[in-house]
Amino acid sequence: MQLLKDRILRDGKHLGRGILKVDAFMNHQIDPVLMKSIGEEFARRFRPVQASRILTAETSGIAPALAVAMALEVPLIFARKHRPVTMTADAFRERAESHTKGGEVELLVSSEYLLKEDRVLIVDDFLATAKTISALVKLVGQSGAVLVGVGAVIEKAFEGGRRMLDGLGVPIESLAVIERFDDDRIVLADAN
Amino acid sequence: MQLLKDRILRDGKHLGRGILKVDAFMNHQIDPVLMKSIGEEFARRFRPVQASRILTAETSGIAPALAVAMALEVPLIFARKHRPVTMTADAFRERAESHTKGGEVELLVSSEYLLKEDRVLIVDDFLATAKTISALVKLVGQSGAVLVGVGAVIEKAFEGGRRMLDGLGVPIESLAVIERFDDDRIVLADAN
Repeated sequence: MQLLKDRILRDGKHLGRGILKVDAFMNHQIDPVLMKSIGEEFARRFRPVQASRILTAETSGIAPALAVAMALEVPLIFARKHRPVTMTADAFRERAESHTKGGEVELLVSSEYLLKEDRVLIVDDFLATAKTISALVKLVGQSGAVLVGVGAVIEKAFEGGRRMLDGLGVPIESLAVIERFDDDRIVLADAN
Repeated sequence: MQLLKDRILRDGKHLGRGILKVDAFMNHQIDPVLMKSIGEEFARRFRPVQASRILTAETSGIAPALAVAMALEVPLIFARKHRPVTMTADAFRERAESHTKGGEVELLVSSEYLLKEDRVLIVDDFLATAKTISALVKLVGQSGAVLVGVGAVIEKAFEGGRRMLDGLGVPIESLAVIERFDDDRIVLADAN
């Protein structure tokens, strides 16, 4: 997706150790025009899989997942890291290691909103080691729903997450792939 | 906003002690069609104040604030509760009591994205005691930017938050006002 790739090259910064700062447009400040385009591009790619629900994890997944949900007009669920007082039903729970924060987080989804009849499309901001996405996949498994696809806005190819997900047998789409960092320089793959 | 009021009456649940469960469409599962309409309604009401940035707090504020940002085509910033490794600049910080979680949270906004030239519209999911919104107002003050309005999707009139904000001299808009709960019954105000 050229618009996104151009933005990453313009406003993204490699902070070292493979960490990409994109908080100028993705996960602290958000460019809503870019985010809407991201939603529409995922919708175009995933419309054939006929998702009945979009699933993401708080916090940074919410914006792109909402953009996809708006474009497909399908409900969105964001997994919570803490049980709020309003989560009154049983919850599906999975643990995931957090790459950028350190330590483990728990992801919870109320059993009220993820049903075994559902066809679930997972959307997140990054596909890196795939630890968060793998936890979301397990949450779908717990519910008995069918996973129909995985979308990530930015993929860091060098962290190998895609290999972890290939066995799922569903389409995996990312809109910009980072092959590597050469010190300050962000090297994007040609495709996508 | 009738669409929202109907939805609150249909899917909202009073859990006791003034706590409203709206996680079927607002803050765990999100109805993207409703959320888009919420964004458009806020945009209609706030277009005259000419905001240059929308400000909210993670997590539950992100969806309505993004919907407003998309409708107005103005960048959104969500205050973070923890400093991520990608927040490399100085941050504006304020503490706020959390009503539904208990305890205090800190809200952080990078000084890179809230500028003294900005005209800031605050958008959040709830206006209850106004503790979160007041912390966001103080963040705007720290940056030297001008506050131009406050929008909340649902207002709980009986918690008195509006009185805390009246002295700001900016328009305060909510799209559904809960007057009180009669046990299980949600009593909405006629206006909005």
